[in-house]
Amino acid sequence: MKKFMNTSDDFLKESLQGFGAAHQDIVSVYYDPNFITRSQSTKEGKVALISGGGSGHEPMHGGLVGHGMLDAACPGFVFSSPTPDQMLAAAEKVDSGAGVLFIVKNYSGDVMNFQMASEMMQSPNESVLTNDDVAVEDSSFTTGRRGVAATVLVEKIVGSLAEHGGSLQECKSLGDKVNKNSGSMGVAFSSCTVPAAGKPTFELGFDEMEFGVGIHGEPGRRRDKIKPAQDITNELLEAIIEDLKPNSNEEMLLFINGMGGTPLTELYLVFDNAKKFLDSKNIKISRSLVGNYCTSLEMQGASITLTKLDEEIVKHWDSKVHTAAMRWGM
Amino acid sequence: MKKFMNTSDDFLKESLQGFGAAHQDIVSVYYDPNFITRSQSTKEGKVALISGGGSGHEPMHGGLVGHGMLDAACPGFVFSSPTPDQMLAAAEKVDSGAGVLFIVKNYSGDVMNFQMASEMMQSPNESVLTNDDVAVEDSSFTTGRRGVAATVLVEKIVGSLAEHGGSLQECKSLGDKVNKNSGSMGVAFSSCTVPAAGKPTFELGFDEMEFGVGIHGEPGRRRDKIKPAQDITNELLEAIIEDLKPNSNEEMLLFINGMGGTPLTELYLVFDNAKKFLDSKNIKISRSLVGNYCTSLEMQGASITLTKLDEEIVKHWDSKVHTAAMRWGM
Repeated sequence: MKKFMNTSDDFLKESLQGFGAAHQDIVSVYYDPNFITRSQSTKEGKVALISGGGSGHEPMHGGLVGHGMLDAACPGFVFSSPTPDQMLAAAEKVDSGAGVLFIVKNYSGDVMNFQMASEMMQSPNESVLTNDDVAVEDSSFTTGRRGVAATVLVEKIVGSLAEHGGSLQECKSLGDKVNKNSGSMGVAFSSCTVPAAGKPTFELGFDEMEFGVGIHGEPGRRRDKIKPAQDITNELLEAIIEDLKPNSNEEMLLFINGMGGTPLTELYLVFDNAKKFLDSKNIKISRSLVGNYCTSLEMQGASITLTKLDEEIVKHWDSKVHTAAMRWGM
Repeated sequence: MKKFMNTSDDFLKESLQGFGAAHQDIVSVYYDPNFITRSQSTKEGKVALISGGGSGHEPMHGGLVGHGMLDAACPGFVFSSPTPDQMLAAAEKVDSGAGVLFIVKNYSGDVMNFQMASEMMQSPNESVLTNDDVAVEDSSFTTGRRGVAATVLVEKIVGSLAEHGGSLQECKSLGDKVNKNSGSMGVAFSSCTVPAAGKPTFELGFDEMEFGVGIHGEPGRRRDKIKPAQDITNELLEAIIEDLKPNSNEEMLLFINGMGGTPLTELYLVFDNAKKFLDSKNIKISRSLVGNYCTSLEMQGASITLTKLDEEIVKHWDSKVHTAAMRWGM
């Protein structure tokens, strides 16, 4: 296993320490239980947004804590759900009286632990469950569709509404809408290695890809031979479009997400190929995002997310955001 | 070879097309000859900053074009120098009468081609040559030290001075100072594959690393066994510090740069380990940068750069920047 690490036990802690030290203007990191908050306290009356999940998907979620996005993130061990004490400690720190919205990716462990935290909390709270992955209906760690890269979009868009004074119910409704408006699907060219496991999660032949892969290396729709990027892109988009059924001339956001080990150059090439395909279908890309946001450790691969836009979503997408990983409109 | 690509001939063009389409608010991309400019023209009387080099190091340099940084970038084919016609076409587009500063990494091909462009130009121009890599004195494609990740810092800092009205000579002097104040060294855990070559540039055993690697996979100081991250970090920093000879309590910028295939989690862990080492040497990290900025396609690995700070450098580091890959202070 080739990783920058000392021991697998210290992997998460040292990474969080580095993250906190490098971005002390934006975040504060707490340990035992582990959680990340903004360095400035939540303003009174603002709904507090908390997300979390297993580590290994960075910059999601810690890199998305900051003005216009999350108030706190709870990192579990690599590919393991955080525990309710983390969510409760984070909520206690960032709840300013307007309630807490949990943004949870649909994996059985996360759902259970966030549910427990929700029930243990005294103050009003709601949850948005993301399940944008159109690849498969059930999966290794999930009943129902998996929550993947659209979670980043939900966090940005709901984060803006919360910053602009949206109520707990309004934030939940918008989050549910963005999730429903989104479809994602990914492909892996290589596996990834969980530090504590020390060996690759799965094996891929030298000319193989996992089509429809999950963000923990869960199986997708099939194992296939590597193909030209345009063919892979078209197939991913066809699956997403079949699910989302956009109208002709519908305006959408196109998000090309890297899995961690694929360079930016290739992600931009996928963006180009996706644009060509969508142009041919009269689907208009009016907003875009390209980069490594919802990753799977060092996995080589990428996912595509499409989100149907409306005036409200566009307004909150464009608004100011200032986190370690996403910044604009400042 | 597992890459998102269609043909190696179209790799660069399709990637540039995607880059241009995803960031049309920030950049304009021109073809035959290939170059990237800001989407808004250079304001009159502002020194124009142009960089470039082989592709495969993204986001450097195209992702660094924008307010507060570069005016134009000239991408060559993967790991190949751009040609003088690219620099001349870019210069013609962005020269607003105050002269052109070329920022060139020290590789024989780049030096020769930028030199030719400089001589063919009618208008005043100067060059800053970066050579921050302390690993080796001469290398496969270089006479003298290689220019690596500190080039990103030079472009940020000089970009700010140019934006604030610095003259051509002042910009050159500041660029030379930042280069002189900087030292870098990297390590590779895996090779990378140039699309047109179709096979890895070099081979590494399952437990080996290339210590002091160049950004095109050039040999470093030695081939070594993988070690704990703290040991690797200490050794890289010792080499840099031996070169830079900082004073005790000197304030420095610490830049942990990913080579393209290493996830953010590990880069933050290296930041943590570097901070521990530097704390023990009474070196104060007052500015920082962590991420994939000067990459080598999908290579797994990282480099560390230290830059001695002074008031002028800090002022221009902190100032507003708005490019595809670096944004703050807005």
